[in-house]
Amino acid sequence: MTYTSDGPIPGFHAVIPAGGAGTRLWPLSRSGHPKFLHDLTGSGRTLLQATVDRLTPLTEPGGVMVVTGERHVEAVRAQLPGVGADEVLAEPSPRDSMAAIGLAAAVLAARHGGDVVLGSFAADQVIHGASPFERAVREGVEAALADYVVTVGIAATHPATSFGYVHSGDSLDLDGAPSARHALGFTEKPDVVTAAAYLATGEYRWNAGMFLVRARVLLDHLAAQRPALHDGVRKLAAAWDTSERAQVLADVWPGLEKIAIDHAIAEPVAAAGGVAVVPGDFGWDDIGDFASLSALLAPLEANDDNARVLGDDASVVRLDSYGSLVVPSAGRMVAVLGLDDVVIVDTPDALLVTTRARAQQVKDVVQALRTQGRTDLL
Amino acid sequence: MTYTSDGPIPGFHAVIPAGGAGTRLWPLSRSGHPKFLHDLTGSGRTLLQATVDRLTPLTEPGGVMVVTGERHVEAVRAQLPGVGADEVLAEPSPRDSMAAIGLAAAVLAARHGGDVVLGSFAADQVIHGASPFERAVREGVEAALADYVVTVGIAATHPATSFGYVHSGDSLDLDGAPSARHALGFTEKPDVVTAAAYLATGEYRWNAGMFLVRARVLLDHLAAQRPALHDGVRKLAAAWDTSERAQVLADVWPGLEKIAIDHAIAEPVAAAGGVAVVPGDFGWDDIGDFASLSALLAPLEANDDNARVLGDDASVVRLDSYGSLVVPSAGRMVAVLGLDDVVIVDTPDALLVTTRARAQQVKDVVQALRTQGRTDLL
Repeated sequence: MTYTSDGPIPGFHAVIPAGGAGTRLWPLSRSGHPKFLHDLTGSGRTLLQATVDRLTPLTEPGGVMVVTGERHVEAVRAQLPGVGADEVLAEPSPRDSMAAIGLAAAVLAARHGGDVVLGSFAADQVIHGASPFERAVREGVEAALADYVVTVGIAATHPATSFGYVHSGDSLDLDGAPSARHALGFTEKPDVVTAAAYLATGEYRWNAGMFLVRARVLLDHLAAQRPALHDGVRKLAAAWDTSERAQVLADVWPGLEKIAIDHAIAEPVAAAGGVAVVPGDFGWDDIGDFASLSALLAPLEANDDNARVLGDDASVVRLDSYGSLVVPSAGRMVAVLGLDDVVIVDTPDALLVTTRARAQQVKDVVQALRTQGRTDLL
Repeated sequence: MTYTSDGPIPGFHAVIPAGGAGTRLWPLSRSGHPKFLHDLTGSGRTLLQATVDRLTPLTEPGGVMVVTGERHVEAVRAQLPGVGADEVLAEPSPRDSMAAIGLAAAVLAARHGGDVVLGSFAADQVIHGASPFERAVREGVEAALADYVVTVGIAATHPATSFGYVHSGDSLDLDGAPSARHALGFTEKPDVVTAAAYLATGEYRWNAGMFLVRARVLLDHLAAQRPALHDGVRKLAAAWDTSERAQVLADVWPGLEKIAIDHAIAEPVAAAGGVAVVPGDFGWDDIGDFASLSALLAPLEANDDNARVLGDDASVVRLDSYGSLVVPSAGRMVAVLGLDDVVIVDTPDALLVTTRARAQQVKDVVQALRTQGRTDLL
């Protein structure tokens, strides 16, 4: 994929939190090999690689940082030969997004000064449209330079109930960010009636969890809202590039508060008028389940059965089946006969057979396996 | 399983033709490892072993003979340590049932004289009820001693269209076989209206392809009906227990006519009044497809979802699924969510997902794979 870019944005650093189990994508996604390490679009690049590919042209060398769990560091480095070892931050245990992004902000501030703008982009989202994405990031950086916490609001295509929404207010009247508006507030996963009412106003967009903000501004907000967490990430950052890192991590990390950046900063700061929203008019999906994965994949061209195969089509025989999604990732032949909208995910040690309509309930299968003590499969 | 038997029947030899691919049971049944080598009932014994178990108490030592393809001889011997090497006849290539049973009859006649009674029982059928089975065999032997070709007619439980039927006439009035009647004729796989009309008369039974006949009588009929085939099996039998066997097999076998015993002997001899039918009032199935396999298996007791698992129940997670059949024979976890009457057959190199209603069409999957040149999976 080629990005037509106006080149790196001075002082901009991309931060990619790479975490989350993706239990609704079991058995493809596992705790030991989560969603972001997979090529879920058949593009030949994993979600993490595609995220880095998208951001690298917008940053100066060394400007992409990944924050991930210790157990994934090796896989992340193997997938990202272009990202330096110093730019992969390892978390000893999951402490939610505020600790991850706060640590990255503090390390960036220590290394480069607090005026750098960081943009945080989850490692497991799919985006179509490099040009509108870049425009959103450039506007977001401009708004961040005006000391706002900036979120990207995605043009909603339907009243989704599995996404959060951001409510846009008046324009910020910024020269470099003409589309940027005040963010009036956030709503998590509304019911479908509320979501439809939101869309009717034209003032609501999907909150994709992309934040752009000066390192200093983020840390100041964190100091005001969650002082203990602020002090913790500052201590970690001060020791990060020294021989003390491991010791300070062991001392400080386990005590850090587990909280999402949305609750810790975005919501309270929005209430105080400090959050901006820039529109993102690109295709976006978080591939939350197999139905959404199916919708992202192109139908097989040679057939008229509306089937999707993620992997080698030659490993799938379909007869009298319409709209199936097959993931033949175990290298075995998969034959499906007489079932519509079936989802078959074949992996070396576990097989899932369900339908697109049941995609959200795959987490119940994971829960059932957990109850049975089969954590080896999770 | 214990058989209550009155002991061996003097002069009775069981012949078990073990052949047939069972393509509607793919991917469980393969050409290299066909249906009869599998435990399809969860009893711990394969269909072949259960067939031998059933007949051994009715025969004298050395009285069970298996006729199978050369490629299956090793597996057959491994499964049947109690059957002597001389009692496993290897066919260089499939030549249908008349050649197989004719060869067995000729070898038995050469070894033991033509007055022995042979009973032919397919290796891949399931029978419930040792006592009524034994009664049918004992009556069948009596009728065979009166020089009839005897077939066992199974009490039909429904107007099946996938079985053949035998039409019973008047009693033979034999002292040792009070239930034996003349067989008036045979019908292969009638339509459902014809089958229902048959059942209404009370005169038709399923033809299970079990034949009992004196070796001499069978060979005489064969000489009259198919003289070339008769001469071929006689030549083979004369050389069988000599050093000439391989040479004669190579010379004679490839030229033998491919014909079923039903067409070669049962039908023409019935027309001439020489076939008898004895009733078999035992449970019988040929496990023709996964729907019939499912019907044979007991539902899992601990659950109310009417599911069947052939294999380790601990390898299957079922949620919101009713009436599923799962065969987890690859040792992997199989999870099924939100599908009723689904059939999932998991093997190390191939997976089938279908429904019980489509069970008969599994052969189309096999055909599709053949068309694709994937004979390695067949």
